[in-house]
Amino acid sequence: MKIVITGGAGFLGCKLSEALLAKGGSPEIICIDQSEPAKPVPGVTYVPGDICEPGAFDRLIADDTLSIFHLAAVVSSQAEDDFDLGMRVNLDATRALLERCRRLPDPPRFIFASSVAVFGVAPPIVDDETPARPLNSYGVEKVIGEHLVGEYARRGFIDGRCFRLPTIVIRPGAPNKAASSFASSILREPLQGQPTVCPVAEDLAIWVQSPRAVIANIIHGHDLPTDAWEDGLRVLNLPGITVTVAQMLAGLERAGGDAGLVSWRRDAATEAIVGSWPKGMITTRAAKLGFEADENIDAIIGVFLEDELGNPVNKPKG
Amino acid sequence: MKIVITGGAGFLGCKLSEALLAKGGSPEIICIDQSEPAKPVPGVTYVPGDICEPGAFDRLIADDTLSIFHLAAVVSSQAEDDFDLGMRVNLDATRALLERCRRLPDPPRFIFASSVAVFGVAPPIVDDETPARPLNSYGVEKVIGEHLVGEYARRGFIDGRCFRLPTIVIRPGAPNKAASSFASSILREPLQGQPTVCPVAEDLAIWVQSPRAVIANIIHGHDLPTDAWEDGLRVLNLPGITVTVAQMLAGLERAGGDAGLVSWRRDAATEAIVGSWPKGMITTRAAKLGFEADENIDAIIGVFLEDELGNPVNKPKG
Repeated sequence: MKIVITGGAGFLGCKLSEALLAKGGSPEIICIDQSEPAKPVPGVTYVPGDICEPGAFDRLIADDTLSIFHLAAVVSSQAEDDFDLGMRVNLDATRALLERCRRLPDPPRFIFASSVAVFGVAPPIVDDETPARPLNSYGVEKVIGEHLVGEYARRGFIDGRCFRLPTIVIRPGAPNKAASSFASSILREPLQGQPTVCPVAEDLAIWVQSPRAVIANIIHGHDLPTDAWEDGLRVLNLPGITVTVAQMLAGLERAGGDAGLVSWRRDAATEAIVGSWPKGMITTRAAKLGFEADENIDAIIGVFLEDELGNPVNKPKG
Repeated sequence: MKIVITGGAGFLGCKLSEALLAKGGSPEIICIDQSEPAKPVPGVTYVPGDICEPGAFDRLIADDTLSIFHLAAVVSSQAEDDFDLGMRVNLDATRALLERCRRLPDPPRFIFASSVAVFGVAPPIVDDETPARPLNSYGVEKVIGEHLVGEYARRGFIDGRCFRLPTIVIRPGAPNKAASSFASSILREPLQGQPTVCPVAEDLAIWVQSPRAVIANIIHGHDLPTDAWEDGLRVLNLPGITVTVAQMLAGLERAGGDAGLVSWRRDAATEAIVGSWPKGMITTRAAKLGFEADENIDAIIGVFLEDELGNPVNKPKG
């Protein structure tokens, strides 16, 4: 069973590789990424490369490739800063990947990591029927990718499934160029005694999910049978929980972190992007299909303490 | 005032040219099209060419181009039959056109002709909040075009407006490869004493509008000031009326045509495409913005008799 993960050296790709290997069945996992993995997952093949290069996917995908997890992307703030780069990576490379898959003898399962960023002009709480009207380049490129994946699936070129991921909290490692990067930083850094800066207001609400839950949902979505996905309905809002920045910091304190390490410097560009995203979702379809959310912010912080700091704590009191 | 119309030699492009000239202001109109116009509009420049050719737009668009009407497209049945052709014309050429416009010193008004075909998985009657989940290639390509136009507008590269056109009835001339072509044929041919074939059931309902009303709405939408269009809301469902095939044929008889000239041979491919489109729309936003619909099917037939057959008839009794 051959599996290709684009952006596979990133933290989400590494966690996905680990989870796929833990499932058993001895999958052969090939990751393409511009960067080296921080900690390579044993048994995984890493191919350094730019997915925008012509033929980039020919080195990875072969007739026996069964599954593609397309995680590679230029993230939100970077796509906003560099329009052409975002279009090239998020749109053109996605299409090139779909074209490569189209030439496979059997349509592979194709998982496309989309995002809450597809919602811009929308009510604060969106549901499965809310139209995607993005207000940032990243969201536009993701919604176009969704439509391409849906169409290639309808044509029978792939067995495509698109998942709109919540903001992932707490990401390990260093801050990145996602506008939502602060949502991890304001917890991750203080939990390790480090200072950090919060660029948004304390009452900003976001839709979040732990890496562990996101990975479980991505794999669940991959494993669902083909007939779970109807044409025109191959895009799914994934479950999560709504938390405000203030609620995150309260959780930080309950977990023994010092919220005093967070200083405040509002950034209009970040606020404009993140502020246009949903505050929450009613994920009825996902629940019916068996996807699950974290319980609360304490559980999300607990995942970080356990998985990243090797520090299983007693459940803090709510 | 320089205006470029892609697909400008088609019937809609010719009617648009006539209407723009009739408005006055001596516009310079340049049309690009693969075909020659059936009846060239005096004063309009026709440039034969394939919009997919590299640099195709350089011959048309110059620094003084103020408005673009992007009508050129591979229509629905053809896009369904030839996936690559549809993607090339409807998606790649649209993007190339947007890129050309981006290099203009001032963002031009950019009118994108979209379609009811963007709706697939949808209730029978859609409204301004219904998500676009198309079930045919044409619809997918159109909704992607809408997102591109919206993003280029948000970036300030163009002043874009996308209009989802109803099925246009009665188109003059010969049948084309639109799945909805029959909706004109079943009226146009009998009104001229000719036989025709209807490929769908008598109770199929479609959302239609006369060419005259569509052109009036396209120009109205073009002329609205920039601040009428907010980011994320640059796509508009245009008004129309719902008619069944049976109601169209009743209108044909009231107008003196012989419905007996219509024979029936159902075609599954046509039914699959047209059947996935909305039966009607609640076009609240369009009404607020001053767009208008035909009164009824008799008025729509009357437009054809007047504009195409030079035969202004007394209004038939309803």
